[in-house]
Amino acid sequence: MEQSRSGQQNIPRISVKDEFWNRYTELVRKTVIPYQWEALNDRLPDAEPSYAIRNFRIAAGWEQGEFGGMVFQDSDVAKWLEAVGYSLATHPDPELERIADEVIALIAAAQHENGYLNTYYTIHEPGKQWTNLHEAHELYCAGHMIEAAVAYYEATDKRELLDVVCRFADYIDTVFGSEPGKLRGYDGHQEIELALVKLYKTTGEKRYLKLAQFFIDERGTTPNFLVEECKQRDGYSYWAKRKVPIPTAEQMAYNQAHKPVREQDAAAGHSVRAVYMYTAMADLALLADDHSLLEACRRLWNNMTRRQMYLTGGIGSTHLGEAFSFDYDLPNDTVYAETCASIGLIFFANRMLQLEAKSEYADVMERALYNNVIGSMSQDGKHYFYVNPLEVWPEASAHNPDRHHVKAVRQKWFGCSCCPPNVARLLSSLNQYIYTASADRNEIYTHLFIGSEAQFELAAGRVALQQQSRLPHEGYVRLEMSEAPDAAFTLALRLPSWSYGKAVLTINGTVAEYELTDGYAKVSRRWAEGDVVEWEPALEPHLIAANPQIRANAGKAAIARGPLVYCLEEVDNSSPLSALSIVPDTKLISYDDERLGGTVVIEAEGRADEQASWDADTPYRPLAQSLTQAPVKLRAVPYYLWGNRKPGEMTVWIKLASRHR
Amino acid sequence: MEQSRSGQQNIPRISVKDEFWNRYTELVRKTVIPYQWEALNDRLPDAEPSYAIRNFRIAAGWEQGEFGGMVFQDSDVAKWLEAVGYSLATHPDPELERIADEVIALIAAAQHENGYLNTYYTIHEPGKQWTNLHEAHELYCAGHMIEAAVAYYEATDKRELLDVVCRFADYIDTVFGSEPGKLRGYDGHQEIELALVKLYKTTGEKRYLKLAQFFIDERGTTPNFLVEECKQRDGYSYWAKRKVPIPTAEQMAYNQAHKPVREQDAAAGHSVRAVYMYTAMADLALLADDHSLLEACRRLWNNMTRRQMYLTGGIGSTHLGEAFSFDYDLPNDTVYAETCASIGLIFFANRMLQLEAKSEYADVMERALYNNVIGSMSQDGKHYFYVNPLEVWPEASAHNPDRHHVKAVRQKWFGCSCCPPNVARLLSSLNQYIYTASADRNEIYTHLFIGSEAQFELAAGRVALQQQSRLPHEGYVRLEMSEAPDAAFTLALRLPSWSYGKAVLTINGTVAEYELTDGYAKVSRRWAEGDVVEWEPALEPHLIAANPQIRANAGKAAIARGPLVYCLEEVDNSSPLSALSIVPDTKLISYDDERLGGTVVIEAEGRADEQASWDADTPYRPLAQSLTQAPVKLRAVPYYLWGNRKPGEMTVWIKLASRHR
Repeated sequence: MEQSRSGQQNIPRISVKDEFWNRYTELVRKTVIPYQWEALNDRLPDAEPSYAIRNFRIAAGWEQGEFGGMVFQDSDVAKWLEAVGYSLATHPDPELERIADEVIALIAAAQHENGYLNTYYTIHEPGKQWTNLHEAHELYCAGHMIEAAVAYYEATDKRELLDVVCRFADYIDTVFGSEPGKLRGYDGHQEIELALVKLYKTTGEKRYLKLAQFFIDERGTTPNFLVEECKQRDGYSYWAKRKVPIPTAEQMAYNQAHKPVREQDAAAGHSVRAVYMYTAMADLALLADDHSLLEACRRLWNNMTRRQMYLTGGIGSTHLGEAFSFDYDLPNDTVYAETCASIGLIFFANRMLQLEAKSEYADVMERALYNNVIGSMSQDGKHYFYVNPLEVWPEASAHNPDRHHVKAVRQKWFGCSCCPPNVARLLSSLNQYIYTASADRNEIYTHLFIGSEAQFELAAGRVALQQQSRLPHEGYVRLEMSEAPDAAFTLALRLPSWSYGKAVLTINGTVAEYELTDGYAKVSRRWAEGDVVEWEPALEPHLIAANPQIRANAGKAAIARGPLVYCLEEVDNSSPLSALSIVPDTKLISYDDERLGGTVVIEAEGRADEQASWDADTPYRPLAQSLTQAPVKLRAVPYYLWGNRKPGEMTVWIKLASRHR
Repeated sequence: MEQSRSGQQNIPRISVKDEFWNRYTELVRKTVIPYQWEALNDRLPDAEPSYAIRNFRIAAGWEQGEFGGMVFQDSDVAKWLEAVGYSLATHPDPELERIADEVIALIAAAQHENGYLNTYYTIHEPGKQWTNLHEAHELYCAGHMIEAAVAYYEATDKRELLDVVCRFADYIDTVFGSEPGKLRGYDGHQEIELALVKLYKTTGEKRYLKLAQFFIDERGTTPNFLVEECKQRDGYSYWAKRKVPIPTAEQMAYNQAHKPVREQDAAAGHSVRAVYMYTAMADLALLADDHSLLEACRRLWNNMTRRQMYLTGGIGSTHLGEAFSFDYDLPNDTVYAETCASIGLIFFANRMLQLEAKSEYADVMERALYNNVIGSMSQDGKHYFYVNPLEVWPEASAHNPDRHHVKAVRQKWFGCSCCPPNVARLLSSLNQYIYTASADRNEIYTHLFIGSEAQFELAAGRVALQQQSRLPHEGYVRLEMSEAPDAAFTLALRLPSWSYGKAVLTINGTVAEYELTDGYAKVSRRWAEGDVVEWEPALEPHLIAANPQIRANAGKAAIARGPLVYCLEEVDNSSPLSALSIVPDTKLISYDDERLGGTVVIEAEGRADEQASWDADTPYRPLAQSLTQAPVKLRAVPYYLWGNRKPGEMTVWIKLASRHR
């Protein structure tokens, strides 16, 4: 097992400088973080109130009132603070830091003497702590606060929030565990597990790691804790607000607690819970060198990404339970593909890359990032999709309740607003996803092609790398050594799946051979300051077919170009989009276009079914009357940009026109 | 406006004698009615108990216990009795009549002094009568009991149940109405309106007709009765078992009470409620010569059948609310297409034919009957579909909760078992749907081609007609006058839409010209006893295309032959069915086959997408690798027979293979 421990400690020394991505990181810094601050304070006109800050004020005794929002509303504040931490790490901002410090003081004031911290239970159900792990997200909220504290501490060296969460974690450690008198339980929504790993890495306190291991090991064992807990509550359900039948252990698949995690082999249940758990499992597999956990991670990764993932990197096929369904069931129109789930998928991929440098993990990470995740946010940073469909018919979203969850227009802010702050914290920490490095083995892996400045401490010595990238629109990456050690080290460059094996490596202007290992071109040599590596993976548009088992895409193709999946929008084409088909051997012509603030549009040869002969009141007629098609130009835009203009139909998968054989 | 009042009084003098349909009527008589009797008495092993008879016994004071089943469980007994009535009308059966008489005595014993009759309120909420018209189906159950009483009386001349329902209707008439002190209300589930029309026709009592008119006229007026009633209950909901927010008048679209019925122009809300209401509206339009009601009926008919109806005659596009969604939204896989809704559609078509003899109504009636309705029942008569999908993937039905309502295998008996007894009462009263006749105008219209013996009393005199039909498998109908009056009369034969205008009329062996009016071939002449009319509408298989606005069927075709829609089943073809496509200019070869107890199978030229080169763990790859197809024979069976063999995939709409142009 190859373990390329990247050393998260390098992270603060990687900063993104990229034309494409700086638009997003700047948007997060200048718009999203301030906008979400307004949201957390209920100051957005025409948006559902968040109550999140107000809850802390009430819990701190600074204000009177009732708890508001979701039971896990605290996590919104945490995710915002985490994003602020990442942002401050690269862009000091005294005013933002002052606001954050005030929020942290507020959080500290809401903490109980014993370390407990949760505004819902403090305000609304004092004394009922730890009685509804199944539904009430207590440890989930704790986890997010821990992540925030770590990020904020790493950015500012300020310990106040870190101390708060350590006290809280210490307290949790007295409540949960296998020792007599402790609760042998775990949260209904995984999150604290991966957070405790981060807390361990930052503080070096092994108890936090052990606690994470306990939560993972205990999950899904018999007797089922969540079932037993439900019996203890006499079936009372927080969400139903009444007693409900005691669920079975099998039903705990929703929470991935239907069997021990090492026995799980297919991604199941609520997709965000799943990927958060898999992330922690991968963390623990690495830190504890736990082979059975690694095997489970590989199995779950394979099942999820090879049989249950949309082309856009979305996961979760049904809104009922926001969940996975089963292999190859990937409906485009009733899809869920929640933004948070793809973010969690990126976390998981990141951890798998730390375990083993295989390009497949980075391919999926890139797919989810460039399509599902950034597509969830509007170009103004103020509107979000929670559900990221591959096919939209706005009238169906409005008038067929099976599709109400699929919005045709991004929303301002959600009552359950998990996604927007999750996007913010991911985009402001993008620097953590570009590389992994192994100091011992003197290896630097380049996973994502994102312009950046990075420093690594290898056994060979210090390396400073400047990356320039023309992705996603051109397949050109340039790496320059601004500092190189005297000894040799290995630079590994991902050969992206979308290049289909075609890439040219140039070192100091000369085309170079490279060895390919697990999808990475590796060059080991003594590097000198000023050495320039150019990496040109073939970035061409392709028509993509889906496995015939994915019934939803039968007879259809999608357009992809490099990491970007494309889609047809009604505004560039016509309605209904389903009347259009694409010629299988069409040329795909890419050109720069002013549309959508400037992007690469793809034009293809298509056919439009004749419609004029149809009367609006004729539902069916013999096919013989319906065979005429007219040639049309299809215009496709990157999926991540859809829905930024006039609302209308959208589709990723396009019917295939007649095949010439 | 042409009004061909058929005179329901002719019904007892029409009896079905048809090779195809007698299989069904015999099945209903010999299997379904006895089987359902067992079900009503909770004697079916492995099926959910009905509690229906037991509820009446408890309400009658013959037994102690709690109410069981749905709030509208009484209606199952009523629908069973109605089917028994129709069955006895053509097939006297003393033992069945004895059982029915006992049930009627039980029902009479459960009736209150004042005429009130409802086991739920009698047992479970005495004193709460008429406080939840919105949800509790009181008048709905009353309506079904009235229908049963009329059918039983017409069959047996026994008045006991008719007297029970007249007392009940008289009591209802004292409770509801626009007079001061009466409830200006109506039921949340329409049904009593059409039942009161039947009761009026049988008894001649105009108050019943007026009461039906009141319910129809009052519905959806302002202030909205159902909303106000909900306020009276302080928001308490029977289904939620708690207080819920007071619904808006717009939300009463579910109950078609969002606006006055004459202002409704699109089929909306719960589809069974809708068609039951439209049926009553058509009844009243005829009996009261109400032109505004007729206009509303035409508008609603047109919207529903031309924009919101499946090829199989199914209606209702979503299981959420078992409801219509909007124009052209006809998903094949998340479909509802409830059996009861198509039965109600047949009622409505039947009433429209009484208003105006246009073949479109009969075409739809035939489509719903030969496809959705008989397809809902297994060939053994003991298993039923509630939802009638046009595309099934059994794994998705099992593992994707969005499709849990779509069953891949017919079920034994439902907790909410509206559909099976509805099928029984329709099939045992098929004789009512074949003809309409106008005595004044000396016209007999043949709408359905079902072998039968019929007698009509025209102004010209008595006519006796023997119909023989080879439908649905051959386009041959033979009508013989076994009795003819001295004066001329008109025989009108429907030119079915599936014949696309091609039909040969032969009178006494000589090909005859005919005049076509509103889709009927009309021959007016003096007929003689022994005259033979042969009618041969072209019955050929066709590929059918859907309007491009019906996005779900884009790039697909269906096979139809005569009134029958066909489908592909996995057992005759291969999996996944989505990998198969049909050649647009294929010959469609029909042949008799032993499959499924003998039927006409259609073979077509198809293509199968190559699958062997796909690895199970490769979800996507460039299309260029995926273009190979192999020629295959597709085998299609009538839709109504699907699901009677090994469970598997099924599809009505088939992808089109490359077009040769």
